[in-house]
Amino acid sequence: MSFAPLQNDTFLRACGRLSTTHTPVWLMRQAGRYLPEYRETRARAGSFMGLATNTDYATEVTLQPLERYSLDAAILFSDILTVPDAMGLGLSFALGEGPRFASPVRDEAAINALRVPDLDKLRYVFDAVTSIRRALNGRVPLIGFSGSPWTLACYMVEGAGSDDYRLVKTMLYSRPDLMHRMLEINADAVAAYLNAQIDAGAQAVMIFDSWGGVLADGAFQQFSLAYTARVLAQLKRGHAGVAVPRIVFTKGGGMWLQEMGQLDCDVLGLDWTVNLARARAQVGDRKALQGNLDPNVLFAAPEQIESEVHVVLDSFGQPHTGPGTGPSQIFNLGHGISQHTPPDHVKVLVDAVHSYSRALRAAPSA
Amino acid sequence: MSFAPLQNDTFLRACGRLSTTHTPVWLMRQAGRYLPEYRETRARAGSFMGLATNTDYATEVTLQPLERYSLDAAILFSDILTVPDAMGLGLSFALGEGPRFASPVRDEAAINALRVPDLDKLRYVFDAVTSIRRALNGRVPLIGFSGSPWTLACYMVEGAGSDDYRLVKTMLYSRPDLMHRMLEINADAVAAYLNAQIDAGAQAVMIFDSWGGVLADGAFQQFSLAYTARVLAQLKRGHAGVAVPRIVFTKGGGMWLQEMGQLDCDVLGLDWTVNLARARAQVGDRKALQGNLDPNVLFAAPEQIESEVHVVLDSFGQPHTGPGTGPSQIFNLGHGISQHTPPDHVKVLVDAVHSYSRALRAAPSA
Repeated sequence: MSFAPLQNDTFLRACGRLSTTHTPVWLMRQAGRYLPEYRETRARAGSFMGLATNTDYATEVTLQPLERYSLDAAILFSDILTVPDAMGLGLSFALGEGPRFASPVRDEAAINALRVPDLDKLRYVFDAVTSIRRALNGRVPLIGFSGSPWTLACYMVEGAGSDDYRLVKTMLYSRPDLMHRMLEINADAVAAYLNAQIDAGAQAVMIFDSWGGVLADGAFQQFSLAYTARVLAQLKRGHAGVAVPRIVFTKGGGMWLQEMGQLDCDVLGLDWTVNLARARAQVGDRKALQGNLDPNVLFAAPEQIESEVHVVLDSFGQPHTGPGTGPSQIFNLGHGISQHTPPDHVKVLVDAVHSYSRALRAAPSA
Repeated sequence: MSFAPLQNDTFLRACGRLSTTHTPVWLMRQAGRYLPEYRETRARAGSFMGLATNTDYATEVTLQPLERYSLDAAILFSDILTVPDAMGLGLSFALGEGPRFASPVRDEAAINALRVPDLDKLRYVFDAVTSIRRALNGRVPLIGFSGSPWTLACYMVEGAGSDDYRLVKTMLYSRPDLMHRMLEINADAVAAYLNAQIDAGAQAVMIFDSWGGVLADGAFQQFSLAYTARVLAQLKRGHAGVAVPRIVFTKGGGMWLQEMGQLDCDVLGLDWTVNLARARAQVGDRKALQGNLDPNVLFAAPEQIESEVHVVLDSFGQPHTGPGTGPSQIFNLGHGISQHTPPDHVKVLVDAVHSYSRALRAAPSA
């Protein structure tokens, strides 16, 4: 496979902590329900999985936000739960609800039956990656992704989202042996899945540990972080001689930044509760930091969005402009964009990140 | 008013960071749906508010867990949202659902109409406090409580629980002036409410900032912490010559412990994501720490509950045993107990806290 040369490498440079002319920006769930053109495609596809499993539709919606906004990266349109679906759990999305598994994993027999899935069952994802990469034609890099082993386990046991994670935590506390067995399989499956995305054309990969933050201190390290590390240890470092950066995002993980700073990854994603200056102090500029505007800021007026963007960029502090590596931020929201977001407000955000971060570099503080 | 002398002052001593023979323990929502006798009383009362507004019922259910377990404190049976109810918002609880306000506060006119409520409308709470204190007859101290100004504002604007706090955050980011006005009124109302509970017999008071943790760094300090401080500044320091300790609990607030350590309160409540040793380092033993077992541990087997209790007590470290003040823990869950908890498991927890914490004091580590 060969693809068109990359025209905008700002995101990849920032992942590698190299200097950039501006702070790159992309948004979690940037291809999504807040865009009328997305809703139109989804209506044609009939269902979320109908959309995600169709190469043409997945390509179409992935590129939609790039037509509107000067984003510095694209992210594969898919779901974090494709891997357990391929394990046979039967993923579906009822309209207006979250994901649901027809066959949750709740006992020893079900866990003993779990296997790393045949990657052919995920062929639709790899085909979408290649198709999107072609369609991007070098405009911006393409990010592939997966849920983390722990986050997959939450949904696999609960069968759906949860308020209290009672079922999965009951298993964790009462049968830690079963939980570890499931997490090992999940980690190996996620690693194989992300490696196949890299082979198919993904230029960076992100692990979404959406539910790591619900774990107790101690349990997080044993049941989430350790298995994220197990994924990272198996990932390809690059493809065709080009490095493929790895991003790890634990929602609600700000308490554990010191430990997360030891992960073998390039970028840590942060939610809005984290103070970026403190995060830099804790991680010690060994990683680029990605985040962390509250998505609800996008409901305010344009001037207020601009001012909150400035607060986030100022809170990270001066990006480096010289040779070699140094402090590096990738602007993002602290969580997926809300379906209720006015699309015009996203343009205000993206443009504010670009213009203010350029100005910061032009006039460094004393 | 005069009450029977206190027989078990372990909780109050621990609040004051004085040495104790064991680590005191109580549980958030210890009077609640997991107890069959509670469900029986609630059925007689007809509704949650029917229960909370009836002095006899409120007294009965507050004392129920003390009959089963050797808890070191009682907490008033009530709801965190009684204050906005008294402001005229119309609180109700549909069976199996969370609280709901009939008249949420969503615009400038509604905020301009808000007032610190007439405390007579909350007379049922103060009557319950006095009745419970009498019924306790000095067994253990009684804790009064309220929601924090920010947590009240969340419910007042959203009208109910929320996944994303979109409405309240939209107001916060687009009309910070309105949000500050509401928070000032809430803070003054909460202070008056807690002072009246102290007058009625509450021996400690707790501010539940259940939703502080959903705020962005920066917004938390401005819109939650500042108004918790405004409440604390107005609180009575004691009653009839006896100190009344103040506890502040921000769920998801572990990121801001340094700032919270500056609050004029005696105890900080912590959820299970917080490492107690780190919390001690950050707060510097200026406060007692309350917490922080994951309530889901109570679904595991008795030996596992005991072992997780030991982990939490060990993670806090050696309590002081000498004269004067020193490091001090109050054992609790990191959040309210689940309605699905097996009542027998709570006994295992309470007894494990007492016996292991006694053993720790008897054989201090080298």
